[in-house]
Amino acid sequence: MEPLRVALLGCGVVGTEVARLLTTNRAELAQRVGAELDLVGIAVRRIGGTRGLDVSPDLFTTDALDLVKRADVVVELLGGIEPARTLILEAMAGGAAVVTANKALIAQDGPALYAAAAEHGVDLNFEAAVAGAIPLIRPLRESLAGDRVRRVLGIVNGTTNYVLDQMDRTGADFGDALAQAQQLGYAEADPTADVEAFDAAAKAAILASLAFHTRVSAEDVHREGISAVTAETVASAADMHAVVKLLAICERTVDAEGQEGVSVRVHPAMIPRSHPLAGVREAYNAVFVEAEAAGELMFYGRGAGGQPTASAVLGDVISVGRNRVRDARGPGESAYADLPIRPMGEVITRYHISLVVTDRPGVLAQVAQVFAEHGVSIETVRQQMLPTQPAGVAVEPGQRLARLIVVTHSASDSALAATVSALSAQESVAAVAGVTRVEAAE
Amino acid sequence: MEPLRVALLGCGVVGTEVARLLTTNRAELAQRVGAELDLVGIAVRRIGGTRGLDVSPDLFTTDALDLVKRADVVVELLGGIEPARTLILEAMAGGAAVVTANKALIAQDGPALYAAAAEHGVDLNFEAAVAGAIPLIRPLRESLAGDRVRRVLGIVNGTTNYVLDQMDRTGADFGDALAQAQQLGYAEADPTADVEAFDAAAKAAILASLAFHTRVSAEDVHREGISAVTAETVASAADMHAVVKLLAICERTVDAEGQEGVSVRVHPAMIPRSHPLAGVREAYNAVFVEAEAAGELMFYGRGAGGQPTASAVLGDVISVGRNRVRDARGPGESAYADLPIRPMGEVITRYHISLVVTDRPGVLAQVAQVFAEHGVSIETVRQQMLPTQPAGVAVEPGQRLARLIVVTHSASDSALAATVSALSAQESVAAVAGVTRVEAAE
Repeated sequence: MEPLRVALLGCGVVGTEVARLLTTNRAELAQRVGAELDLVGIAVRRIGGTRGLDVSPDLFTTDALDLVKRADVVVELLGGIEPARTLILEAMAGGAAVVTANKALIAQDGPALYAAAAEHGVDLNFEAAVAGAIPLIRPLRESLAGDRVRRVLGIVNGTTNYVLDQMDRTGADFGDALAQAQQLGYAEADPTADVEAFDAAAKAAILASLAFHTRVSAEDVHREGISAVTAETVASAADMHAVVKLLAICERTVDAEGQEGVSVRVHPAMIPRSHPLAGVREAYNAVFVEAEAAGELMFYGRGAGGQPTASAVLGDVISVGRNRVRDARGPGESAYADLPIRPMGEVITRYHISLVVTDRPGVLAQVAQVFAEHGVSIETVRQQMLPTQPAGVAVEPGQRLARLIVVTHSASDSALAATVSALSAQESVAAVAGVTRVEAAE
Repeated sequence: MEPLRVALLGCGVVGTEVARLLTTNRAELAQRVGAELDLVGIAVRRIGGTRGLDVSPDLFTTDALDLVKRADVVVELLGGIEPARTLILEAMAGGAAVVTANKALIAQDGPALYAAAAEHGVDLNFEAAVAGAIPLIRPLRESLAGDRVRRVLGIVNGTTNYVLDQMDRTGADFGDALAQAQQLGYAEADPTADVEAFDAAAKAAILASLAFHTRVSAEDVHREGISAVTAETVASAADMHAVVKLLAICERTVDAEGQEGVSVRVHPAMIPRSHPLAGVREAYNAVFVEAEAAGELMFYGRGAGGQPTASAVLGDVISVGRNRVRDARGPGESAYADLPIRPMGEVITRYHISLVVTDRPGVLAQVAQVFAEHGVSIETVRQQMLPTQPAGVAVEPGQRLARLIVVTHSASDSALAATVSALSAQESVAAVAGVTRVEAAE
């Protein structure tokens, strides 16, 4: 069997590790594939040294377009949309199989890329695009192919999980926990993509597409980050034996007419401490899947980092390599279900609402009335005296304030939004301090 | 595309559910496979009714051998060695792909079956054979194919996990917890296969074969069941912030000469409560994998039951169906590494030893001396007064007894066995009440 020519696009943390594994595990990989894997080139922005790799300096090139034309398997680790997109399309047009870890590109342009892969009869694999080393794409695409997925609940961003875990463990507020995460390398200097959940939303789109055989792009995902999560919300969750996590939630829905749909959202949520996802600490990722026949499944592991991501990339390289040796192709896109994407307002869940109210008789009755008028049923109310006046709340001299914590039964997001809006207009409500969804209740 | 003819061998709890899914999800499955899946027959021991299925009574047959000759995909759910083995070999000889949930057969005769599959160019899939619905075989065979697995730690038997979880939660002893499990349907009337870890040993053999690319059969697995786990051992684990689980442990080993090997064992072990496996309650299964690049991964879900197992079987049916539509084959056996299987005596781990000793000065020094003579280093010793005289321990009148709990540093199993043997011979040691391995320490 002829060796397979592997081209690497990008040589950052993950790329270096992939190149290292390809060279040091060469013999073992050949056994697994059924053919040698020849690293024929590494496309970089600037030539300079061998990045500590035991490879010839001649392998490095700045001409990525030329490189993809000389390869049987192209490993794209550039990230971002361009030039990654053009290079992947060129590679597939030339008959090469593609392995990528590019979640942004798959979430945005997945359908066009799948179509090109089908047209040219090549594999397009992207296990590393969601939850790093955790095998997730393959179980969803293949193991659960005979089942019907009801719901996917995922902790798919390590940075935000680290920050929320610190807040839960130490009582720190968001700013301090983020600063610590940055110091330890768990968060980037500009943390926007993680903290505002752009990263998690891209992954949610990919997971939903696979779980429901429906095209879902990042723009279809309702997205809220964690920067508004306060120490007080985290403490209040703890009082309820719950913990706040940034969750990617992909659900199969059925409306009143029996029409199936899909809702996909990423936001902070309280989950019970007894739920398997609650124990996912630090920067770990985990994805919880509920399927009709399989029941509850969970996949747990490191969601990022050079080595774990490289492991997922190599698994894909071996898969597409094996297919090439056998002149076969793995499963392609499956979008036959084509379910409509339901708007966030229709999502049904529970809510934890923190209100600052004036402390006088009748306030609780007024607040309860507002919930009732909007058809939102209250499960519990807790009232706390406020030792000091909260910042940003205007009160008249001599007025005393209290905190009301309301937890609702299930209600639609639009009903809840209308309730919150009406609450804000109440004279006795000084502020709606926070609204957090409550998920995965027992 | 011609429909694929699917034959079902066996129509028990799992078989009925597979047949139900094949018929009710017919259109959806066809979309996923690229061809219709026609259920052409169900082989049963005795004809009688349609088992509540919406199928023609004509589908049922007692002639399994004839049925496999009329199928493109044979789903074997008979269990046991014969006639399952003969029917699978006949099916493959006739060109049919095979899906089985038969762990006993794969663990015993895997190599012969893989060889037959390769000879006839057909797929042999068995995701349901280990940990029911949890996708595990596919991640190990494919996702981690580019990585090197160091260790697999699994809770792969739901019955024993239920019993041990009950003992941990309620303080019950083994007999009571087992009786309760039997009452609730978590344990069979004859619980030997589960309790004595025959079931877990077969699964450990399959996991080790896949993880280390080496043929491991059930006979290669060191096996100890849970019937000797006492309420006292469970309580002592709790004192150490640990919990007792029946673990399947598959490890890559390196001896003093640098020669790699594999050790595979199933036995009760104490693990820290902070370990992800410690939170696996009731009859759930979970498998924890440590790989060189991927780091720590965990797969969690229902390990048994009709629906979860049927989900795994259907996933395999779709995989082999898709391959058939494309005239391709999935990955076959990978046994190229062919690592030697190391004996249990060479296994290095830590131990929790419970001794009943006479309560007089100098006993601790004597006991410590025995450990030192055998090169086993002690990490902690706890001494407890015994309120009552333990059953089965002969003591002289007026003699007071105490319990010594010794936890060791890492030592070989043979050194520990020699230590225990020498301790038993000590006059001051009335009994070695229990030895439990301590795994996954931080």
